[in-house]
Amino acid sequence: MSSTYIAIDWGSTNRRAYLMASDGTVLDTLQDDRGALSLVGDDYRREVVAIRERLGVLPILAAGMVGSNRGWREAPYAPAPADLSALAGAHIRLRDDEVVILPGVSLQTDRRCDVMRGEEVQVLGAASAGLAPADALFCQPGTHNKWIRLAGGRIVDFATAMTGELFALLRAQGVLAGMLGGEVEAGPAFQRGLARGAGATDLAVALFEVRSAVLSGVLPPADAAAYASGVLIGADVGARSDISGREVHLVASGPLAPLYAAAIEAAGGRAVAVDSRAGFTAGIHRIWELIR
Amino acid sequence: MSSTYIAIDWGSTNRRAYLMASDGTVLDTLQDDRGALSLVGDDYRREVVAIRERLGVLPILAAGMVGSNRGWREAPYAPAPADLSALAGAHIRLRDDEVVILPGVSLQTDRRCDVMRGEEVQVLGAASAGLAPADALFCQPGTHNKWIRLAGGRIVDFATAMTGELFALLRAQGVLAGMLGGEVEAGPAFQRGLARGAGATDLAVALFEVRSAVLSGVLPPADAAAYASGVLIGADVGARSDISGREVHLVASGPLAPLYAAAIEAAGGRAVAVDSRAGFTAGIHRIWELIR
Repeated sequence: MSSTYIAIDWGSTNRRAYLMASDGTVLDTLQDDRGALSLVGDDYRREVVAIRERLGVLPILAAGMVGSNRGWREAPYAPAPADLSALAGAHIRLRDDEVVILPGVSLQTDRRCDVMRGEEVQVLGAASAGLAPADALFCQPGTHNKWIRLAGGRIVDFATAMTGELFALLRAQGVLAGMLGGEVEAGPAFQRGLARGAGATDLAVALFEVRSAVLSGVLPPADAAAYASGVLIGADVGARSDISGREVHLVASGPLAPLYAAAIEAAGGRAVAVDSRAGFTAGIHRIWELIR
Repeated sequence: MSSTYIAIDWGSTNRRAYLMASDGTVLDTLQDDRGALSLVGDDYRREVVAIRERLGVLPILAAGMVGSNRGWREAPYAPAPADLSALAGAHIRLRDDEVVILPGVSLQTDRRCDVMRGEEVQVLGAASAGLAPADALFCQPGTHNKWIRLAGGRIVDFATAMTGELFALLRAQGVLAGMLGGEVEAGPAFQRGLARGAGATDLAVALFEVRSAVLSGVLPPADAAAYASGVLIGADVGARSDISGREVHLVASGPLAPLYAAAIEAAGGRAVAVDSRAGFTAGIHRIWELIR
């Protein structure tokens, strides 16, 4: 099967490029850390040349932070509720470069606003390919964890929790820095953290307790990182009222996958793994068929 | 009246030294940013020499982070419930330097641990001098906000919220950095933040909404810092169940004082200002009389 285009999931910190066949098969992939936050201005043009040197001189269809106001060119958000057709309809085309950039999705209700870029292709693609139901709750942990609710194959609601970023900030600087270097696993210390964080209205108190508990000899220093991660992830998952007794489709890879799975189970839910790459390529191919 | 000793409130980032008369009158003061986090090892000895050059070659009685494991010499915590006598009884003496360092207070219950250093002298001193009741709730905002409950002139319970530190971290780095440079006042944006933060179990979501709301045009960029501060302080104050209909003795100076006063009022409480310096010098003088 001959290759027809290159799909790029171009996030803040990571980037995955896929060489796509006309039937949606993935023929080759590239993955690196040339995310949008590490690039400025003409970098993008050079990056695209480099990608084409590796995968072929083909049209490019890109989604994610590449289309944000910190990316290459801003692709205005498609408002929720949104499906794959809405994303396709709101693409922008950089004709000189033969690049199409997809929008993110925005939410605006009486109560709150939210935005996403990139996750929408993964979850809508997963549902369109039968990897997850068309009515489902998705959890996509990362620097910013996304909770996404699909109904009838459309994104109807979502929320972003900057859980991963808070953990990274606390580990890098401030009074807990130097205490959070230990390994984070879904063991007993993480579980105790989950219990403290779930439903907590006093997160800023619960976080200081990491220091107090270490100083008081109640928490072994080697467990402090796992406990603190548990507090933050416990608060994130525990704030949801729609998990107990339900399935949560967990779009995660690497070390966050078992941590969020444990937190979802602790909240009475059932974590079901969804492959983010398969979701992305399924979604991007539907869009490709709509806009090519 | 002749001077008899030098009292130092030696915190993490700031330091205040008081030249004390034998009746507890303050004869002179020094204030600077030579806090414990900016000093190591022999720095303390040099600092003490410099202070004595300014205020006189007198015994020194110091409280605060100077006695922590990041300070000059560790003075182990006095466990709560604790009063001024308990602090006096747990002092350590550096004989070569004619310096006495007071302990902090630790809390350990079935549910949680906490520690403080410095605030205990201020609140116990305020109560002992009649600046606040012997049964009262105190709020001492700063990098770490302390909630302290006194009963019968003893510290019986307390909690530390790292509210100020979270705001500083978010302002310095990460996805909200660059959005939080605006002025923070107790105006409408701060009040809206208070309402969002109070009682919230999803603080990590509420914080990301700052970005979403700015991107969506719902929150003017100039209001983002005030709104974010409101979310954090609203969560801090709103987590307390003991404020509505009660007095909260607010030991604060500078820009945090009106912000916490507004948050306490929004939570149905009544903020009563307490002078932290008068509290500290009253408390330290009682201790001086006990240990000299």
